[in-house]
Amino acid sequence: MLTVKTSAEAEKIIFDTFGKVSVDVEEVKILDSVGCILAEDIISKEDVPGFNRSTVDGFAVKAADTFGCSDSVPAILDFKGEVLMGEAPTFEIEKDQCAYVPTGGELPAGADAMVMLEFSEDYGDGTRAMLKPSAPGQYVTFKGDDVKVGQAVLKSGVRLSARHIAALSSLGYSKVKVYKKLKVAVISTGDELIDVTKNPVGAQIRDINSYELSAALIELGCEVYRIGIVVDELPLLEKAVKDAVSSCDMVVVSGGSSVGVKDATFKAYDMLGDVLFHGIAIKPGKPTILANIDGKPCFGLPGHPLAAFYVFSLFVKPLVLTMSGDLGKSKSLKKTLPVALSIPSNHGREECMGVKLIEKDGREMVEPVYAKSGLVSNLSTIDGFIRISRDCEGISQGDEVEVELF
Amino acid sequence: MLTVKTSAEAEKIIFDTFGKVSVDVEEVKILDSVGCILAEDIISKEDVPGFNRSTVDGFAVKAADTFGCSDSVPAILDFKGEVLMGEAPTFEIEKDQCAYVPTGGELPAGADAMVMLEFSEDYGDGTRAMLKPSAPGQYVTFKGDDVKVGQAVLKSGVRLSARHIAALSSLGYSKVKVYKKLKVAVISTGDELIDVTKNPVGAQIRDINSYELSAALIELGCEVYRIGIVVDELPLLEKAVKDAVSSCDMVVVSGGSSVGVKDATFKAYDMLGDVLFHGIAIKPGKPTILANIDGKPCFGLPGHPLAAFYVFSLFVKPLVLTMSGDLGKSKSLKKTLPVALSIPSNHGREECMGVKLIEKDGREMVEPVYAKSGLVSNLSTIDGFIRISRDCEGISQGDEVEVELF
Repeated sequence: MLTVKTSAEAEKIIFDTFGKVSVDVEEVKILDSVGCILAEDIISKEDVPGFNRSTVDGFAVKAADTFGCSDSVPAILDFKGEVLMGEAPTFEIEKDQCAYVPTGGELPAGADAMVMLEFSEDYGDGTRAMLKPSAPGQYVTFKGDDVKVGQAVLKSGVRLSARHIAALSSLGYSKVKVYKKLKVAVISTGDELIDVTKNPVGAQIRDINSYELSAALIELGCEVYRIGIVVDELPLLEKAVKDAVSSCDMVVVSGGSSVGVKDATFKAYDMLGDVLFHGIAIKPGKPTILANIDGKPCFGLPGHPLAAFYVFSLFVKPLVLTMSGDLGKSKSLKKTLPVALSIPSNHGREECMGVKLIEKDGREMVEPVYAKSGLVSNLSTIDGFIRISRDCEGISQGDEVEVELF
Repeated sequence: MLTVKTSAEAEKIIFDTFGKVSVDVEEVKILDSVGCILAEDIISKEDVPGFNRSTVDGFAVKAADTFGCSDSVPAILDFKGEVLMGEAPTFEIEKDQCAYVPTGGELPAGADAMVMLEFSEDYGDGTRAMLKPSAPGQYVTFKGDDVKVGQAVLKSGVRLSARHIAALSSLGYSKVKVYKKLKVAVISTGDELIDVTKNPVGAQIRDINSYELSAALIELGCEVYRIGIVVDELPLLEKAVKDAVSSCDMVVVSGGSSVGVKDATFKAYDMLGDVLFHGIAIKPGKPTILANIDGKPCFGLPGHPLAAFYVFSLFVKPLVLTMSGDLGKSKSLKKTLPVALSIPSNHGREECMGVKLIEKDGREMVEPVYAKSGLVSNLSTIDGFIRISRDCEGISQGDEVEVELF
């Protein structure tokens, strides 16, 4: 008989057993990589920018030639020519010379600063007057100022978003290596379940979990195989799990894991592999199972959709992200906020409680939303949840709590 | 000549002119709706649950029959039978009777409470002993407790995630109406630009913006037409914009909007429609254009990718979400955090500054990341940005700021 684990013990077992990346790598076009996990370190092969670049429209000069100049005592410089956008200058700047360079254009060799167009005057005689001094480096981004050859720009494990795509394209990456999607099979089990397309008769209820959990996995970037409802009979469930294990990286079964009469999930997992734990001391969600079948993690989640959702968020999601190669901050989004109402303690057992973000006295706060097993009204109202530790003596109004946001 | 607008004025013009939903509605399967914007109010057509449901494994009883019972003085009740999971009971409970009901099963008529299995004993003579009293309603979710017929559960305009899919499936929605994707054309313009697949020669630079902005639009759920580089010549740009306007809901051109020699974006927009503003008093990002061409918003963003990204985040993204039907909180994710270092003021002009989230003295704080036009190093390091208002006298170490997270 397996004993109930604390959530910390359960987490340790989960990560000790399965906490490695378990998906392959593929190369995709950078715009197809949005939301994917980078599977290579990006080391710059070149200096960025690749040339000394002006950040203004104006004149490239030797800064020293402008020292001390002003409206009344301008620095008169010979106009050497114009640098066209995107073209390399064909001449150099020598002492007392200048050249026009547009924003983003390359400074000619010899120039080390820019004077803005508005602080210059055209004398019409082949010279330009500079009315304001410029310091060396002013209005110039030097070659390699942004990134130098060999510099590590992005690390494997980051979830790629627009700003990473910007970095990749600036470094000349039109394709990039990313992790493939984690394949996860989702099964609901329970004699009372009917598919969402059907109308319940008697005490039947619709299969919520296979949709809820599939959606949650899709949001995490998984390739989801929603197997749907498997009747709570051992041979059928065993076959479904076996098939799922052979084609997927992870299996998530919900329902059938309480201490009820049948408990088919536990039995199926126990026959096919090793059950690593059966029960986590957390409310809601005690009847949670983890098994290792052919080296693949197989979860048994509570049948109640709210409990299944919390257990998924706490224990399945972090593993999904790790196995998907995600080492970044997308694991969870947390905010520390005061509670607007006191929350009584629940000694001896860790508890998850749904909360709503509210505005009170001009501050952002959280308000507990009591579930009473109310799935729909609860889940469609809350913005996230808080964890109340097993030794907590209750939370007083105004105390700060850490909120895990959806 | 159009005057430069403050960011508040620019926002007002943007939303006054284009702040309406501008996409059609389609019906999709609920798992295909993850991340889409709901385009109908979801009103429950039924009570949830649809029957009085047990939340434990145990015995359905009339609570009054158990009042005062205990281990030593059990309440002896006639065992009327067992309710099977998912089936409607075929009998009623009368005084001094009980029936076995599994977790999630339906209570027989007449029963108003449950006694948990572990607080009962089977006497083997057709009776069961209840060892603990139960109050009316204990361990029971009554019909309609969660949602009642006619109750509004989800509102049009919410971005659908797993918990909404759970609510939809519990209410029997296998399909749902969502807004179609907003179609946005993305163009980069500039004589110095080359595609990311090419190596720069001389002062050429790679087109970063069309990838960066396309990726950002993909993240917002848009259907993106990355037209890529259009040479900074008026007739070519005019044709590209005209084509884009005819097939898309929005056009985003970057580059060509500074006060440089050509300024083709402004000219093209001015010829094809009405330029509503040209310039926002914000750093970086002053040379921002908005035009109305055939009733469609056409933005001109700065050519510098960092400036383009800030302007996109502040002005384009909110409009994209609104036109896409998104009325929810996905518009931006904000956190209020102290700054780890003082930030000097920049009188007279609103400023965006990239920041990094750091941990200092056990607290989460933000640290400014100075750009000096360093795009790659900046954008791949920062976690979000702060806005420093034009009348700010500088931010002192420890002051709280609002961070817009990526």
